[in-house]
Amino acid sequence: MENNILNLVKTPPSSPAGHIYLVGAGPGDPELITLKAMRLLQQADAIVYDRLANPQLLDHAQENCDLIYVGKKRDQHSLPQEQISELLVALARCGKNVVRLKGGDCFVFGRGGEEVDYLNQQGIKCTVIPGITAATGCAAATQIPLTHRDHAHAVSFITGHRQNGKIDINWDLALCKDSTVVFYMGLCNLQDITTELIKRGCPADKPFAVVAQGTSNQQQVVVGDLSNIAKKVERAALASPALLILGDVVKANGYAQSLANQTALKLATTLPEVV
Amino acid sequence: MENNILNLVKTPPSSPAGHIYLVGAGPGDPELITLKAMRLLQQADAIVYDRLANPQLLDHAQENCDLIYVGKKRDQHSLPQEQISELLVALARCGKNVVRLKGGDCFVFGRGGEEVDYLNQQGIKCTVIPGITAATGCAAATQIPLTHRDHAHAVSFITGHRQNGKIDINWDLALCKDSTVVFYMGLCNLQDITTELIKRGCPADKPFAVVAQGTSNQQQVVVGDLSNIAKKVERAALASPALLILGDVVKANGYAQSLANQTALKLATTLPEVV
Repeated sequence: MENNILNLVKTPPSSPAGHIYLVGAGPGDPELITLKAMRLLQQADAIVYDRLANPQLLDHAQENCDLIYVGKKRDQHSLPQEQISELLVALARCGKNVVRLKGGDCFVFGRGGEEVDYLNQQGIKCTVIPGITAATGCAAATQIPLTHRDHAHAVSFITGHRQNGKIDINWDLALCKDSTVVFYMGLCNLQDITTELIKRGCPADKPFAVVAQGTSNQQQVVVGDLSNIAKKVERAALASPALLILGDVVKANGYAQSLANQTALKLATTLPEVV
Repeated sequence: MENNILNLVKTPPSSPAGHIYLVGAGPGDPELITLKAMRLLQQADAIVYDRLANPQLLDHAQENCDLIYVGKKRDQHSLPQEQISELLVALARCGKNVVRLKGGDCFVFGRGGEEVDYLNQQGIKCTVIPGITAATGCAAATQIPLTHRDHAHAVSFITGHRQNGKIDINWDLALCKDSTVVFYMGLCNLQDITTELIKRGCPADKPFAVVAQGTSNQQQVVVGDLSNIAKKVERAALASPALLILGDVVKANGYAQSLANQTALKLATTLPEVV
């Protein structure tokens, strides 16, 4: 299969260069893709897709559409970013109209900016179609309003990634008052993030929610505060991807808590009883 | 028409209470609504809609669907927030399934949180469907990546609203380094915002873009920096709604600038020549 792709992309261009559509697939629920994204999926000659894009969406591709998986897991790139960009260029040079399908939104921690840079350098035309980013998807699913006149007049999206073995976060931003903070890709660093935030003066009782596989049928929700969320999440053994939401809005209404109670109940009934 | 609505909502409940769907319509382009939102629109007994939701979307309503406009302009509420919430409750108590259609996303400066609060208090069930918020919509349309490994590892959404005649903004958040800042509803305060940011130490040459009627056919783009954007925007006489984007990502590639050149060209050819 890989050889087929290489043959394909080495074919000299026989038609004018195709067009690349960087398309946000939205979060877990495949019905949260936009009408425009769906139309482009249905018309594409090739779809280059990520681990986070729901594979059910591929059912809408044309029969003869090339479906190319370039998914990434943390620290385990099945295809390095440079090679994905090169693949897109090669497909476009074969005259193909390509949908580059990414989970969430391409420009919110989706590396869409880097792909646009490369396509520009190579003279390939591209169009970007926005997607529902995890923050707004999970907020809707848990009824946690990211902004609320009584609680937060701003919201920030931050990554909680590790760099050179150390957690690298915009702490100033995370500590700003009167704003909701959403951490992307922070689940495996949750303990370090919460410890550091408390050390830097964030109130230990600040409400905190973790939403795993948000908007999908497998959604799990854990609600607590800065001081206890890491322990609670450890007990719940959540599956990635997960989104972290820090702020008073977590307690704005009881819905997130009721989902957390359901998640806890499911966990209690599936775990072996402690004798 | 208004009397008809009042009669309608005063009818005593003859069936079990209906359900309220708070639905994000996305930004200007009506094709940027999600599949789920469109399905709910097509099934609704009533649609209660805002000024910012694209009216073309209403063409998809059932023939006998009640279409109720509760649009707001700045400082000119056609229906106060409390009355909108009461209307939703009244419609639900008539057994109607209601789509409350809002521009963008309900939970990003959409007052969705307040409507959820009220519905909860009244015991009315509601579901929230996310929408493409203006920031991701305009970012895609202008190819300004909100995050980018070379430029910004975080992004914040802030309102630029006036309170008691004074501009009230989370300045700490707006001044955080290594992050993109998106101001919602800040167009009429642009001069005050830029002046204050420079006064507080933000570099005067920090790139700044203003996207008016983003993602629609009438989109206008102005690109400059913190020191000159207000003047440039004044000259371009942009129409609301507009989104302000501050950060190095504005210059990440040349696309936003090329759109700004087009906007300037259109302006030059439509304005009377200076003799």
